[in-house]
Amino acid sequence: MSMKPLILLSNDDGVAAKGLQSLITMLQPLGHLFVMAPDRARSGAACSITSEIPVRSTLVRSEDGLTVYSCTGTPVDCVKLALDQMLGRQPDLVVGGINHGSNATINVHYSGTMGVAIEGALQGLPAVAFSLVDQDPNADFSPLTPYVQSITAEVLRRGLPYGSCLNVNFPAVTPLKGVRMCRMGYSRWADEYTVCRHPRGGRYYWLGGECIDDEPDETDTDSWALKNDYVAITPVRVDVTDNALLDQLSDWPL
Amino acid sequence: MSMKPLILLSNDDGVAAKGLQSLITMLQPLGHLFVMAPDRARSGAACSITSEIPVRSTLVRSEDGLTVYSCTGTPVDCVKLALDQMLGRQPDLVVGGINHGSNATINVHYSGTMGVAIEGALQGLPAVAFSLVDQDPNADFSPLTPYVQSITAEVLRRGLPYGSCLNVNFPAVTPLKGVRMCRMGYSRWADEYTVCRHPRGGRYYWLGGECIDDEPDETDTDSWALKNDYVAITPVRVDVTDNALLDQLSDWPL
Repeated sequence: MSMKPLILLSNDDGVAAKGLQSLITMLQPLGHLFVMAPDRARSGAACSITSEIPVRSTLVRSEDGLTVYSCTGTPVDCVKLALDQMLGRQPDLVVGGINHGSNATINVHYSGTMGVAIEGALQGLPAVAFSLVDQDPNADFSPLTPYVQSITAEVLRRGLPYGSCLNVNFPAVTPLKGVRMCRMGYSRWADEYTVCRHPRGGRYYWLGGECIDDEPDETDTDSWALKNDYVAITPVRVDVTDNALLDQLSDWPL
Repeated sequence: MSMKPLILLSNDDGVAAKGLQSLITMLQPLGHLFVMAPDRARSGAACSITSEIPVRSTLVRSEDGLTVYSCTGTPVDCVKLALDQMLGRQPDLVVGGINHGSNATINVHYSGTMGVAIEGALQGLPAVAFSLVDQDPNADFSPLTPYVQSITAEVLRRGLPYGSCLNVNFPAVTPLKGVRMCRMGYSRWADEYTVCRHPRGGRYYWLGGECIDDEPDETDTDSWALKNDYVAITPVRVDVTDNALLDQLSDWPL
């Protein structure tokens, strides 16, 4: 029996993405890795699941301490399928990433990488998502190595409370100034669509736009940490109840 | 200038779904309705967005006080496109539903109907999602009418705090016993996949399974309310920060 931890990995940029391959290299010293990742880019998949059509998985490679599958489903499908059908036992940790692009502030809600971590937390497992604020397919992930390893080791050692996971975002700078524990900052997307005209008539719309920081003067947000060259660690809970509003609702005449 | 409120509607069962058509009928007395709904079923779409391909929209019908578009994108795409490109002004309210099936407990994370409400809240608008615990395409939504109308009217009158929305679930019973304000209950999905063998070899997997209540003895959850014939109203916040864990993280040696 191996005493090494078992770590389940997935992402939303697809199984071939450099961010996932970099994560594999960083985490191999820490445990046995089982990778189940989407067969293509699934950016913005959030916690979406596939129920109208079936999913399939394909073995990509298998070597000592590392097994890699691709899956036709979403990031959350990948985690569900691995846990329900592929792994012989519960993993010690679920990790998503490393994402090509920020998942800080409100983008936690759209992120398939965070979908991986949230699904892990919903299944009662410690879970972490890593993202680098650089969408380049060839982004340099190597400066992240000591942080990814120490954060992962610490979560393996301590665990996380039931229903909680970590959203870890790295600024694309060197040197990194260290780690900040943060709350989710508020932001909003502006000018979200580019309108194009179809050659046979009608319009089509490309999603894009600009993410605007709504709290530029607050120093406890993930956006502040990233702008000031710190690694931003934001603890996320899956219980979305708004307890303050729950108290107010008792006055409503319904 | 009309003084009637402007209400933006969407769903995740698609523009033709009976739940959406029922919602339109119920809300027409309360305001001008602008509907932008997916052109097909998008169950389980969560807060996913479409960024790898463009989206298109098509006018379905337009009459006094009611405009209906279909859209090739997800529920969140529908809300974004309507707000960014189609509506001349900010709506007074965003409503998702009525969903064919429960979005209570942890299913808030997978729900495209809740994606509609969360996107509304992220854009700073009051937002509500309605769901009926009945997946039948021909489900009877008529017993919900007085509740949908009074809850919608109350949200229009009072508004909601920035970054909050309501997740409203109806049990499929008559008579309904009234309304309960709830927290999100914890549950988990078991036996999630049915394995099938492809005629040309290999396996494929259908997502399904059973949702198990992890807190059957708690009386303040949405699952308790639904099991006891009450309408469950759960306030949801888009700030997912786990503040309790944030306090603990300051002790971590990172």
